[in-house]
Amino acid sequence: MCLTFLGTGSGTPTRTRNTAATIYARPDRSEFWLFDCGEATQHQMLRHGINMNKVSRVFITHMHGDHTFGLPGFISSRAFRTPGDPLTIYGPPGIAEFVSVTLNTSASHIRYPLEVVELDHAGEVPLGRDDTVTVRYTTLDHGVQSYAYRITEADQPGELQVDKLIDHGVQPGPCYGQLKRGEDITLDNGTVLRSADFVGPPQSGPDIVLFGDTRFVPGHADFAAGADLMVHEATYGPEYPDKAQKYFHSTTTQAAELARQAGVKKLVLTHFSARYDTDEKLAELLAGAQAIFPHTVLAADGATIGL
Amino acid sequence: MCLTFLGTGSGTPTRTRNTAATIYARPDRSEFWLFDCGEATQHQMLRHGINMNKVSRVFITHMHGDHTFGLPGFISSRAFRTPGDPLTIYGPPGIAEFVSVTLNTSASHIRYPLEVVELDHAGEVPLGRDDTVTVRYTTLDHGVQSYAYRITEADQPGELQVDKLIDHGVQPGPCYGQLKRGEDITLDNGTVLRSADFVGPPQSGPDIVLFGDTRFVPGHADFAAGADLMVHEATYGPEYPDKAQKYFHSTTTQAAELARQAGVKKLVLTHFSARYDTDEKLAELLAGAQAIFPHTVLAADGATIGL
Repeated sequence: MCLTFLGTGSGTPTRTRNTAATIYARPDRSEFWLFDCGEATQHQMLRHGINMNKVSRVFITHMHGDHTFGLPGFISSRAFRTPGDPLTIYGPPGIAEFVSVTLNTSASHIRYPLEVVELDHAGEVPLGRDDTVTVRYTTLDHGVQSYAYRITEADQPGELQVDKLIDHGVQPGPCYGQLKRGEDITLDNGTVLRSADFVGPPQSGPDIVLFGDTRFVPGHADFAAGADLMVHEATYGPEYPDKAQKYFHSTTTQAAELARQAGVKKLVLTHFSARYDTDEKLAELLAGAQAIFPHTVLAADGATIGL
Repeated sequence: MCLTFLGTGSGTPTRTRNTAATIYARPDRSEFWLFDCGEATQHQMLRHGINMNKVSRVFITHMHGDHTFGLPGFISSRAFRTPGDPLTIYGPPGIAEFVSVTLNTSASHIRYPLEVVELDHAGEVPLGRDDTVTVRYTTLDHGVQSYAYRITEADQPGELQVDKLIDHGVQPGPCYGQLKRGEDITLDNGTVLRSADFVGPPQSGPDIVLFGDTRFVPGHADFAAGADLMVHEATYGPEYPDKAQKYFHSTTTQAAELARQAGVKKLVLTHFSARYDTDEKLAELLAGAQAIFPHTVLAADGATIGL
């Protein structure tokens, strides 16, 4: 499981950080999900080799422009020369009007099935027929409706113990697939091989939480409890708790404290104010957060971060 | 007078050409005008050192997304940390709804005076109190309402003939300004100096035409007749007249033919299809156009082109 950060700044683009967008590569890598879509997200996808047509779902955390203004261009360019695969966009109330008015006034012809789903206050995102994953969401504290999303992938099948099979004289073939799927098999000599003896225990699927913009609220730890990876905004350093409170944002140390309370395995900080524009300032932010929650890293545009 | 091209591609951004945007620097350089605003125009301004707050007017040629999707971000970021100077946006019907819905659904707070003016079929753009320039527009042939704009700056005052004044024993001082403004002056010894004798003839102001997307229509030459500079789309090379007709665009040689018929002084081609992606292909396009109209150049992202 990995996330690729396409935009890690806040408010307006800078020379080093674009506005918000994060790619989640599904475990089988056949599709990407996009979280937020700041202006020039399609440019970032071009730069970092993300095939836009492989993005099947977009999840918007909130309607502020630095999280949404890339949507019309992404939707339009996504299948400019090909028919295109279906796309579903989830977001807060307002997203449907934003998408329909931008596409209609620009006379954009979208030749693939496009669905826009407005979410409620909290609950489970309706993913349709996909039963390998659930996405839950909850509302944060940002002045406008802002969500955190929690993606929980189904358990992955255990690993086939190939060495053990070869010791039993079983060469690679269709029976390997049968065993992996949980089916017992009978060899030509009548020996029965039980799947459970040759397949390791199921591996738990990735479980990650991506926060939209929000103030620090201790109760948010419940939503992220025990996650493998938590992505949280950190607009300000610890020197500006008052600004964070006033503008409905968080500080680096507040995010670290939340990760500690939630007992997650790893924390990624993103959505940095443009004032943190040198390696020295960023190193200081990181050190302060790690003092509270050691397994913290800072996102950067173009960076891919795994579990 | 100069134009700076921030986006010279068509349809979708590529690695070398962004979607449409052109900066016109007013002759006194105290303000910029922006023609079209494709997605990531604010990023291009950041890259090429254009102060967004100095952009006082935006002229949209037509509503297609590759000419408009950068507007919400530009409007929002323009005065993110400062109150900001007034901004007026001109464009076809639909522009007001596009701007208001994108700003309202994103809860964008614009703290400067923002006016959006929807234009008609053809006429003069209402510029308010600015009497140093006129902007006329006409409707082209692009399937959706698409304009060409013609900017005609007022004549500039003639040059003061300083050497001649010094020969008459007149040293630099306030009287230089009086003479330049057309006032006659009387020296201490009673001699009358006539302004007309010491100021050269008025210099004609820049007169430029920027075309939106359009099919080749010979009648368009009337609108551009005699201009100093004409910017025209050239989505296709001469090998695709049928595609140009079908998709309401022009070829390089059609644009050159129009420039020849209009008798302009210089032609700038822009809005190139992504298929023209090598220096060789571009050189071929240029040679073909110059065979018809020698004073032709090709725009490139970041290029500044003067009269």
